Amino acid sequence: MKLNILGCHSATPTENTHTTSQVLEIKDHLFLIDCGEGTQNQLRHQKIRFSRIKHIFISHLHGDHFYGLIGLISTFRLLGRTADLNIYGPKGIKDVITLQLKLANSWTNYNLFFHELEKNNSELIFDDELISVHTIPLDHRIYTNGFLFKEKPGLRRLDKVKLRNYNIPHYDFHNLKLGRDLVLEDGTELKNEMVSHDPNPIKSYAFCSDTAYNESLVQLIKGVDLLYHEATFLDSHENLAQKTKHSTAAQAAKIAKLSDVKRLVLGHFSSRYQDKNRFLEEATPFFNDVELAADGKIFDI
Amino acid sequence: MKLNILGCHSATPTENTHTTSQVLEIKDHLFLIDCGEGTQNQLRHQKIRFSRIKHIFISHLHGDHFYGLIGLISTFRLLGRTADLNIYGPKGIKDVITLQLKLANSWTNYNLFFHELEKNNSELIFDDELISVHTIPLDHRIYTNGFLFKEKPGLRRLDKVKLRNYNIPHYDFHNLKLGRDLVLEDGTELKNEMVSHDPNPIKSYAFCSDTAYNESLVQLIKGVDLLYHEATFLDSHENLAQKTKHSTAAQAAKIAKLSDVKRLVLGHFSSRYQDKNRFLEEATPFFNDVELAADGKIFDI
Repeated sequence: MKLNILGCHSATPTENTHTTSQVLEIKDHLFLIDCGEGTQNQLRHQKIRFSRIKHIFISHLHGDHFYGLIGLISTFRLLGRTADLNIYGPKGIKDVITLQLKLANSWTNYNLFFHELEKNNSELIFDDELISVHTIPLDHRIYTNGFLFKEKPGLRRLDKVKLRNYNIPHYDFHNLKLGRDLVLEDGTELKNEMVSHDPNPIKSYAFCSDTAYNESLVQLIKGVDLLYHEATFLDSHENLAQKTKHSTAAQAAKIAKLSDVKRLVLGHFSSRYQDKNRFLEEATPFFNDVELAADGKIFDI
Repeated sequence: MKLNILGCHSATPTENTHTTSQVLEIKDHLFLIDCGEGTQNQLRHQKIRFSRIKHIFISHLHGDHFYGLIGLISTFRLLGRTADLNIYGPKGIKDVITLQLKLANSWTNYNLFFHELEKNNSELIFDDELISVHTIPLDHRIYTNGFLFKEKPGLRRLDKVKLRNYNIPHYDFHNLKLGRDLVLEDGTELKNEMVSHDPNPIKSYAFCSDTAYNESLVQLIKGVDLLYHEATFLDSHENLAQKTKHSTAAQAAKIAKLSDVKRLVLGHFSSRYQDKNRFLEEATPFFNDVELAADGKIFDI
């Protein structure tokens, strides 16, 4: 699993900073999460093949998370895309995108599916054999969701060396992978653990932006391998964080600690702070394994 | 008068090319013309003060001329703008911008005035003491206008040396500037031309993008000092130009010739052509004073 930060700054894009957008590579999927203005340029810059993006998750309809979406949809069309595109985002997203396509008289030549979200509790919004995606309801000025991406448990891994000690028919290999015990032809009872190892550990990623300090997150993101949590402000602006329903670096770290996550990445920095290391300094007293997002930075999970 | 090309490429922005947007500096106004995605970054790059932009003219609602507008409006708000903003563009532009502001629950803290256009003949859309702006109806796949920016004739310029030969009361100076003749106290009849020069010549700029070859432009843009005309294609793709209602470089040059303009600037290049000089080569047989637009290039008019 790999997280590619295309942009991690709040409010407005500038020449050197990009608003929120990330690409999560998980089990051969490339999921785009949020899509600030200029995301299509950042995708080109990171040499990410547009055609591999089939699912886009939009947290909320503030411009710094969303104003690049119509341009990307339009560029996909101009590049002759044929693959379906699925968009998951707050109710209203379909209206605003289709209105723009209608005014431009530019309908897509590929299928565009909208999955509009309006629930206030966590729901399963994507599910296949390998992974699931749940919403994480956040506490912001408008309806906002984070997203929890979780691998599914894989099959048990067979131990080729140990397998040689037994005469196991090929058609039973799959039963072993599924965790079943076998009774061999000679009557031997073969416990699964004798010839197999546990599946690879499942990994999970939680994206939480934008949100006020919100302990109700904890139960949903418990133990994830990586948590991206917004940290728009430093302690000195905690009042502003409260007023605008954003978080400070310390608050993000407290959530990470309570949730017992493995790693924390901070992002969505306000442009008022020149020295980003202060976010680290204010977070580490509460949670140790914390890093700063940066545009173009890649995190291996 | 000065024209600052922020972007002059068609279809989609890339890392090194920007879609249509320009800033016209005319008599202390800074007019923004079209607003492709990323225009706010180009404005910063060119060090243009956001607060000086009070009028934005949008030719049509295709993304490469328009998808940067909502981001710019939103950034103005975040920067604490108080000055009024006027937007001139096709009917529908108000709905799509206000829908996005509504979904973000982010109303502007400045007055936003929409001047929606839907006429098929040229109309006066801006007028003050110093300049006027008329629409130039274009022939494109959706409703599209170019814009004609024209200075108004100034006052006659008094000749200080010649004035000394006559005893002219101060309060008559303004009458002379207005072109009136005087009768002096001693009965002398003073013809205006004896003590004044013609006003500075008025200048004009015509922006024509996007459009098929369209001779009905000629009467509207006759004799302008600078014509920006789209040239999306080269001769080899004339069929495609016709089909998509765009122009070739040669067609743009023919319009410039018929309109007897002083200078022609070509832009809106398709990304399929690596060598932009071919646009020049195909235009010059029809019109001599032709130049290529480039992102970041400034034309003095």
